[in-house]
Amino acid sequence: VTRPRVVVIGAGFGGLRVARGLRRAPVDVLLLDAANYHLFQPLLYQVATAGLAPTDIAYPVRGALRRITNAGFRLGTVTGADLDRKVVTTAEGTEVAFDFLVVAAGARTATFGVPGADEHARGLKTLEDALRLRSHLLLRFEEAAADPGLVGEGALTTVVVGGGPTGVELAGALRELHRVLAKDFPGLPVDQARVVLVELAPHVLAPFHERLRRHAVRQLEARGVELRLGRSVAKVTPGGVVLDDGSEVVAQTVVWAAGVQAAELAAQLGFERGPGGRIVVDERLAVPGRDDVWVIGDIAAARDEQGQLLPQVAPVAMQGGLHVAAEIASQVAGTPRNAPFRYRDKGTMATIGRRAAVAQLPPGLRFRGTLGWLMWLGLHLVMLIGYRNRASVLLNWAYNYLTWERGGRLITYQGEAQDEPPDGRGPGLPPSP
Amino acid sequence: VTRPRVVVIGAGFGGLRVARGLRRAPVDVLLLDAANYHLFQPLLYQVATAGLAPTDIAYPVRGALRRITNAGFRLGTVTGADLDRKVVTTAEGTEVAFDFLVVAAGARTATFGVPGADEHARGLKTLEDALRLRSHLLLRFEEAAADPGLVGEGALTTVVVGGGPTGVELAGALRELHRVLAKDFPGLPVDQARVVLVELAPHVLAPFHERLRRHAVRQLEARGVELRLGRSVAKVTPGGVVLDDGSEVVAQTVVWAAGVQAAELAAQLGFERGPGGRIVVDERLAVPGRDDVWVIGDIAAARDEQGQLLPQVAPVAMQGGLHVAAEIASQVAGTPRNAPFRYRDKGTMATIGRRAAVAQLPPGLRFRGTLGWLMWLGLHLVMLIGYRNRASVLLNWAYNYLTWERGGRLITYQGEAQDEPPDGRGPGLPPSP
Repeated sequence: VTRPRVVVIGAGFGGLRVARGLRRAPVDVLLLDAANYHLFQPLLYQVATAGLAPTDIAYPVRGALRRITNAGFRLGTVTGADLDRKVVTTAEGTEVAFDFLVVAAGARTATFGVPGADEHARGLKTLEDALRLRSHLLLRFEEAAADPGLVGEGALTTVVVGGGPTGVELAGALRELHRVLAKDFPGLPVDQARVVLVELAPHVLAPFHERLRRHAVRQLEARGVELRLGRSVAKVTPGGVVLDDGSEVVAQTVVWAAGVQAAELAAQLGFERGPGGRIVVDERLAVPGRDDVWVIGDIAAARDEQGQLLPQVAPVAMQGGLHVAAEIASQVAGTPRNAPFRYRDKGTMATIGRRAAVAQLPPGLRFRGTLGWLMWLGLHLVMLIGYRNRASVLLNWAYNYLTWERGGRLITYQGEAQDEPPDGRGPGLPPSP
Repeated sequence: VTRPRVVVIGAGFGGLRVARGLRRAPVDVLLLDAANYHLFQPLLYQVATAGLAPTDIAYPVRGALRRITNAGFRLGTVTGADLDRKVVTTAEGTEVAFDFLVVAAGARTATFGVPGADEHARGLKTLEDALRLRSHLLLRFEEAAADPGLVGEGALTTVVVGGGPTGVELAGALRELHRVLAKDFPGLPVDQARVVLVELAPHVLAPFHERLRRHAVRQLEARGVELRLGRSVAKVTPGGVVLDDGSEVVAQTVVWAAGVQAAELAAQLGFERGPGGRIVVDERLAVPGRDDVWVIGDIAAARDEQGQLLPQVAPVAMQGGLHVAAEIASQVAGTPRNAPFRYRDKGTMATIGRRAAVAQLPPGLRFRGTLGWLMWLGLHLVMLIGYRNRASVLLNWAYNYLTWERGGRLITYQGEAQDEPPDGRGPGLPPSP
């Protein structure tokens, strides 16, 4: 007796939940991912700013599946699918057969055609992005230490494009890193190090209540983040950015946190696509007209009952994963549910730095400051996979908080150190749609 | 009033001790290193086998110098020196002037002209070596999981060349990693994973007493390490190694732990060189005929009172660093000591794995088994720099010991995953002298 095979593309928040949701179903689950680890993306910016180590926020997929006896993993990059033959194809040239397919391949940075952004800005979506950014930032300080004239060329300046949670958290963390680097580089005018946050809207943290947004702005300003609200980036150059009002910010580091688009795979699968290149799904999260292909998380253009696109955040992916697991299990059992996916918003949070965060829960509860920060810390600790990772993150956070230090100030990315063009520009982003 | 400037090339065990030894002397110390971190090399093999994270064993040089107010750091690769003008030159094209120069640039892997070793074997001297090896090992398992035929081609086999402490510790750690991977890869015959240790001498761990060597051999064999004692490697191929008796070991991973030579800089400085390319020094550790150029650690051909070359181990470098600091301080004070360097052997240790280590102290004290292992753990914890690193290593060791797991099983080296030739060969070693 062969059991139906569920192939899940992507071992992120959504993909892992599909495997967990099917752990007692009479199916075999195979997760495919181009990385052999699940990445806890919400803390990626702390790796980039030397506060956490890669092993703190990455967990081997095979380890996460240990106790799910009907789930396996294969390392590989899926490049397409043949839906008639029911196989997916990989970049390695192999075919993987499926009875049910769940597409959970996530999102990547989108630069919306802004001139120079693909070439000179850097994204923050992968562990490599974070390690490259960390090495890049530290190298700029080392170069300026050897040649102080580089300070005037923006060696110590970072422009963060985008005032959503990622941009705000990164900007706050960069200012805390500057405090540490001021001790590392006593001969450098680190007080001239700048973080400039550019946001098109007149406020930061769009999903939050106005009082929390104002709190975030005050906290960012208190930490020395320069806000350019209501401004957009007209152009990114090797030496900085030009804003829509013609003003220029000289900076050797530009991080693009202003938008995401569906992973490349969305275009390769041949399904209808919606905003941001996301795959259109029906209310069950299935590809319209099919009962065997499902799409969850950042790569899905799922909508709520009012027809609004669901946000590209971890809880949507996780709930979507469990929903799809239940749908597939019901089909395998011969009693299809065909239930619509109902996303339950359990609230949202963002941190600006030490004892500063904003959190809002659906019934209108709002938290900020130290209490919000403690909630943020606790939630993220609980969401990490594995006791070792949790203990290690807790250790590093305690160290960071008590000593005002950052343990990860290592220039380790050989490619960054040796192969990067001397103009300090980024490694290039994938082309925008 | 300008103070004499002491330039130290290398921020390893020796270089850091020079800075510490001169912290109260009326000099300015400048450390130069191609990496921005001090690397605790004795635990490098644990990063390669996923037991520790890079941030556990690497410490930012600038952090290590925080409290030494007369010492600074510059990132750079020294490529030569002009002794008449008293400057060193860097790969970045800058010149750094010195009044005193301390060469502490360490050692690199030596393959002694064995055919194929430079191309197909990999060293284990840098953090990149360790991360590459980790990714390489894990990738071979992933590939074999997708194509079990690769097991017969040595995908799960590692040959460790060299039965000194590095080779023995690596071989033991690899076998412990195999136990973890057996749980990760339930579909793979991980019981066919092999570690073959090749050693020219009829025993392992040459510097140790015969009873400890025998203990190490028993422990290695109990852990399933296959010993090829009294054998040398005649040739390394893309598919394995050929031994001097004509026998072949099919293996997709070959680690060269059979020898070191002086860092490349030794040849670039133009001084007389001795065995292994090491710079000849007088009994004070100065370059013969000079009072301003000193050489310490692995790159120095220092000798004891009997004319025997001192071993290339951390304690020699550390004691040499303090000795040279005292010599320079005495010269600056106008009362040159001109004292000979006397290395005090405080003992030596090596671990084979869980509750198995050997340790011998000079008065003839010998320890092994659990007691030796606890001594090994304690000593290495104490020698690490920084409380955060110590706490993190202790956390990881406790986790590894209690759970029989390894938290660092991440394939993170992009270059390894994407650029490596499909024959599984190594990244190439520097040419042998």
